[in-house]
Amino acid sequence: MTTDANLVHNQGVTAPLGFRAAGIAAGLKASGKPDLALVFNEGPDYAAAGVFTSNQVKAAPVQWSQQVLKSGRLRAVILNSGGANACTGPLGFQDTHRTAEELAAALSNWGTETGAGEIAVCSTGLIGDRLPMDKLIPAVTEIVHEMGGGMSGGTDAAHAIMTTDTVPKEASLHHPAKWNVGGMAKGAGMLAPSLATMLVVLTTDAVATPEQLDSALRKATRRTFDRLDVDGSMSTNDTVLLLANGASEVAPSQEELDAAVLAVCDDLAGQLMADAEGITKRVLITVQGARSEGDALTAARIVARDSLVKTALFGSDPNWGRVLAAVGTAPFELNPDAISVSFNGFPVCIDGTGAPGARDVDLSGADIHVVVDLRLGDESATVRTTDLSYAYVEENSAYSS
Amino acid sequence: MTTDANLVHNQGVTAPLGFRAAGIAAGLKASGKPDLALVFNEGPDYAAAGVFTSNQVKAAPVQWSQQVLKSGRLRAVILNSGGANACTGPLGFQDTHRTAEELAAALSNWGTETGAGEIAVCSTGLIGDRLPMDKLIPAVTEIVHEMGGGMSGGTDAAHAIMTTDTVPKEASLHHPAKWNVGGMAKGAGMLAPSLATMLVVLTTDAVATPEQLDSALRKATRRTFDRLDVDGSMSTNDTVLLLANGASEVAPSQEELDAAVLAVCDDLAGQLMADAEGITKRVLITVQGARSEGDALTAARIVARDSLVKTALFGSDPNWGRVLAAVGTAPFELNPDAISVSFNGFPVCIDGTGAPGARDVDLSGADIHVVVDLRLGDESATVRTTDLSYAYVEENSAYSS
Repeated sequence: MTTDANLVHNQGVTAPLGFRAAGIAAGLKASGKPDLALVFNEGPDYAAAGVFTSNQVKAAPVQWSQQVLKSGRLRAVILNSGGANACTGPLGFQDTHRTAEELAAALSNWGTETGAGEIAVCSTGLIGDRLPMDKLIPAVTEIVHEMGGGMSGGTDAAHAIMTTDTVPKEASLHHPAKWNVGGMAKGAGMLAPSLATMLVVLTTDAVATPEQLDSALRKATRRTFDRLDVDGSMSTNDTVLLLANGASEVAPSQEELDAAVLAVCDDLAGQLMADAEGITKRVLITVQGARSEGDALTAARIVARDSLVKTALFGSDPNWGRVLAAVGTAPFELNPDAISVSFNGFPVCIDGTGAPGARDVDLSGADIHVVVDLRLGDESATVRTTDLSYAYVEENSAYSS
Repeated sequence: MTTDANLVHNQGVTAPLGFRAAGIAAGLKASGKPDLALVFNEGPDYAAAGVFTSNQVKAAPVQWSQQVLKSGRLRAVILNSGGANACTGPLGFQDTHRTAEELAAALSNWGTETGAGEIAVCSTGLIGDRLPMDKLIPAVTEIVHEMGGGMSGGTDAAHAIMTTDTVPKEASLHHPAKWNVGGMAKGAGMLAPSLATMLVVLTTDAVATPEQLDSALRKATRRTFDRLDVDGSMSTNDTVLLLANGASEVAPSQEELDAAVLAVCDDLAGQLMADAEGITKRVLITVQGARSEGDALTAARIVARDSLVKTALFGSDPNWGRVLAAVGTAPFELNPDAISVSFNGFPVCIDGTGAPGARDVDLSGADIHVVVDLRLGDESATVRTTDLSYAYVEENSAYSS
């Protein structure tokens, strides 16, 4: 969607000045792969903002980080894969609290006086099991010592938060005015099976207040991560954080900050879609001609979540009737006889009935853009989604462990 | 759910006195299988009621039958598989109208003066294509001559409305007071791929007004077909009709009529679930402890539609965390720390956290009952659904034709 010549993919959270990161194997994953990541802000500022899952069932680290973020200040983020620490009760919350306390102590010993209330915690993995604290606690001290100043730390961190992701996801934007935004991400929605969750950490060396960060982050997530819908499922652990340290000594305008954060979020959202579980098609659903952007988004989500649309796209089948049937369930008034649909620019349905050649449209490629025109107004919205494949069923039906 | 000793499965719409039916091959299906069904009411009464899809995109036969039903009177129902006649514009509506006109003429020639406005039309199949009227019109006259008085006519009709159904679905209830209710059904929701739709015709020889029928039918469908949710998709063609002819000369009370219609609908809904596409598990989702039945139903539907819950059940995986994550998205206030979940009576989550042995529950059988207790009130609701299997993806990703 957005493209920016200043965006690169080989750097992430350590692209901005004054951020360190690391990723190590703490032994939380049975595979022995990296499963613990740290992002550390060297200052001079410690401004931060966050957005979290709107699921009412919230994991312990989400509850903790929401509380911590009220101060608008973060020194570090510690993230683990290999366990969601969700639905684990008061003891699970104590585990999160203890992780933050241990990291604060380790950072203080290392020379940076830090309190647990300056540390956000993110977790991803199977819901319902306690984390193995006997493995996690020693690793929290170890990762502080591993924390390098170079670029590789950011990439190591991006690897350590992977669950069923096949590639690490990083992006960074280098603004001509000499300030930077970087980020890393994993997963998307609850597309990852028992090993769920979207986690995103963004960093910037711009000078910005927590309020400016919060505004930029909410605007960006609303148009990017919120419009990525792989299976309609919402994780208990979704977290997107933005940390700013002012190390560039440049204070961009709100508009500049908004644009840069949006560009990085949009790029990471595209990477999340492209690596969604079981994906064989990258699908954009655009609904235009709606009375409001909200209506357009609602209708686009309904189409994006429809199993019959998604299986048809998996089969490269231009079955536009299923798109009409899905749109027809929208909770606002439609004019069915005015709806048009195109697949990759080819009209398949005009004024509610089939267009000539509609059954012969070639959808065999990996990218499919479905455009639905409601002809009710001028507003539009686009949702990123995927097809529903054998591989999705396979990855999500394997036993929890 | 409901069970009734007076229910049998080897008779359907012709079980009540004074109904004839037939099923023939009109050539609408490429396979040459039966694709045209007729249900004919011999009187003396012609009371009728219907419920239809709430999809705003309504097929031509739905638009026609809704209009006809305003009179509360039906002499016959003509049903075709092999084409939905949906999204076919004004010409598609003309095709439906002409089908009713032709049937009225054929019935009048056969000796029963009938108007097109006394005939309901139902269609099921691929959305977006016109019906081959050159094949359908001669078959409409032919089927009137095929119409037998015996039981086999009902079964022939049940066969002719099948699309991807693997078995015909019939049920009838013989009331001790010497009146009867019969019914046939096909498909469920839009579980059937390009060949969609739930069609149900119910008959009774009870004496009943259109208002009594309407009341009984709405109450029954609300608790049965409305709570069958295979993939969350809603067809453009769903139709449930109830015809009464008073041939038994028995006028049951509203309560008796309600109970009998509910029992037949419930049985047919169970048959639809059991024959859903790609099904390997018959799943009941009960939400109890809700503040209202509406809340319970909303939450049960959310769980029933969750792809991650459905793929886990396909894998016989007691992954209760996905149930919690789905429930957590309900649009009313929850107390996440009070929610409990059981699988087939085995507690897997108590007060929002995992119960001992939860990961070891054996779900390898074909029937899974998920009970979620919200502990907010006393209301409950149950939804029938299925798992999400390779076979579902396979059946729904094959090319339209």
